[in-house]
Amino acid sequence: MYLIGIDLGGTNIAVGLVDEDGKVILKDSVPTMRERKYAEIIKDMAALTLKVIKDSGLCVSDVHSIGIGCPGATDDKEGVLIFTPNLKFKNVPLRAEMQKYIDLPVYMDNDANAAGLAESCAGAAKGSRSSILVTLGTGIGGAAVIDGKVYDGFNHAAMEIGHMVIVADGEKCGCGRKGCWEVYASATALIRMTKKALIENPNSIMNKLVNGDLTKVDAKTAFDAKRLGDKVGAQVVSNYIKYVAEGLVNIINIFQPEIIVIGGGVCKEGEYLLEPLNEMVGDMTFSGKYLPHTKIKAAQLGNDAGIVGAALLGKESKIEER
Amino acid sequence: MYLIGIDLGGTNIAVGLVDEDGKVILKDSVPTMRERKYAEIIKDMAALTLKVIKDSGLCVSDVHSIGIGCPGATDDKEGVLIFTPNLKFKNVPLRAEMQKYIDLPVYMDNDANAAGLAESCAGAAKGSRSSILVTLGTGIGGAAVIDGKVYDGFNHAAMEIGHMVIVADGEKCGCGRKGCWEVYASATALIRMTKKALIENPNSIMNKLVNGDLTKVDAKTAFDAKRLGDKVGAQVVSNYIKYVAEGLVNIINIFQPEIIVIGGGVCKEGEYLLEPLNEMVGDMTFSGKYLPHTKIKAAQLGNDAGIVGAALLGKESKIEER
Repeated sequence: MYLIGIDLGGTNIAVGLVDEDGKVILKDSVPTMRERKYAEIIKDMAALTLKVIKDSGLCVSDVHSIGIGCPGATDDKEGVLIFTPNLKFKNVPLRAEMQKYIDLPVYMDNDANAAGLAESCAGAAKGSRSSILVTLGTGIGGAAVIDGKVYDGFNHAAMEIGHMVIVADGEKCGCGRKGCWEVYASATALIRMTKKALIENPNSIMNKLVNGDLTKVDAKTAFDAKRLGDKVGAQVVSNYIKYVAEGLVNIINIFQPEIIVIGGGVCKEGEYLLEPLNEMVGDMTFSGKYLPHTKIKAAQLGNDAGIVGAALLGKESKIEER
Repeated sequence: MYLIGIDLGGTNIAVGLVDEDGKVILKDSVPTMRERKYAEIIKDMAALTLKVIKDSGLCVSDVHSIGIGCPGATDDKEGVLIFTPNLKFKNVPLRAEMQKYIDLPVYMDNDANAAGLAESCAGAAKGSRSSILVTLGTGIGGAAVIDGKVYDGFNHAAMEIGHMVIVADGEKCGCGRKGCWEVYASATALIRMTKKALIENPNSIMNKLVNGDLTKVDAKTAFDAKRLGDKVGAQVVSNYIKYVAEGLVNIINIFQPEIIVIGGGVCKEGEYLLEPLNEMVGDMTFSGKYLPHTKIKAAQLGNDAGIVGAALLGKESKIEER
């Protein structure tokens, strides 16, 4: 079975031909040019889809379905992209527009949900009955896959786990609240903490790593400094991981998922992140000593997660629902 | 269709005969005497069940199934009560023991989950596709019912929403963490805040309400004082509701349930709690202006929720799974 997955981003439209195990066979991309009207953007999505099918040596009739991962909220039942902050789309009939060009079933979901489905079916949480993807990036995103189904709430806007307050009356968040998890545990937060520590400790190895240039600080700086034996860097990392752990333990106490998959830029630290994180999370959870505990793993599919998850929307449970 | 619901508590065993709409036809109870061996306690549960059936003028063959709501974690698939902190049960074969006395299907779940199912099917969230019960009592309990099914996580210990940290490094919680929601928003927390305000403001009306006796402070004291125009009481209530709202908005941002049902002692305040709560929650959620919002309602079934929900375990979806 061949499936098409489309990752509709604010910068690029990526299209991949994926097999039923979630393996990417061929992929391609074009710029989104997001200021355009939706009809033009969707026309490009369809054209690139047809190109990818052709370049794979296949025909449209060889393909089972098209899945689209979109930023914002989608309504798969109605085939509508409800809204996307980046693209300024509002109530766009995504399915109908795509089907003007290609006669295939079209499924859709939020891009974070698609990535969660990909990790659940073909990545770090493969074989699990329930998993939650937590992406530590510019913000914190989340997706829950329970018994093979993406959970998205009654209004398709669930799993905004980055906007769970963990420090009541804490630092201001873009969402309007104060003390949201993503203000303390996103890559952006790590960079902010690193800069602050660097200014307060000019002798830290971190300062050498960025040649004294604050604009060069990134989410790796503190981890790199720690690996070089820098105490200030180690303190930043430990402080950051504590905040990551607070949110993860909340999620475990709420969902008790079999697996939590950590994605986003920060997950590239691998065991440097996961080992102390697992240690900190361990005894903090409410499941106690009689029950099995959630496993925390790094994401495996990287940037392909969007394409793979979108493609698998066609294969997975959503089909039965309609 | 008649169903038996059993609410196994640390103090009493309550048994009710319930119709398929969740209406209690007849109920009875006996003391649990929790220090006894599980076989004796379960024997009493069975005896009371047979008595309730007989007192209703029915036979065992008129009853569809028995459902049991238990404190702690249950494994309905295996028919086992995994553990209950109150009763010191561990891996008790609840189904097999009950079926020694009564030849009926036996279902089981956590008591909070049973209450959540009851409110979802026959109470404040009747007719909704997804609801979350939040009980503001001694602690804070929770249950999620999604598409008619209770969500309980891979280890049957999910929805410990009271142990979601909302004040990192805040007040100590019994679970070992600091700053859990229930330390700020349970009835116990409200009583603690009331006492503190009362000590700091001896001229408050609250002091008269309890005749200067701190041990008489309960979860109603501050609300009563507010209704009498007391500023200190009003401040306590407003402070308390703010913490309730912080946790509720977290839950909405995570689950986007159609309805949140507030149960537990504090929900008796009705609109005095719900009106300011709805106002505070309103614009704090992430769903924004394009999407429908979660409704917050007071629980309707009171103490019967445990019996009704336990009974409905037999009627609801769990049947298909086995």
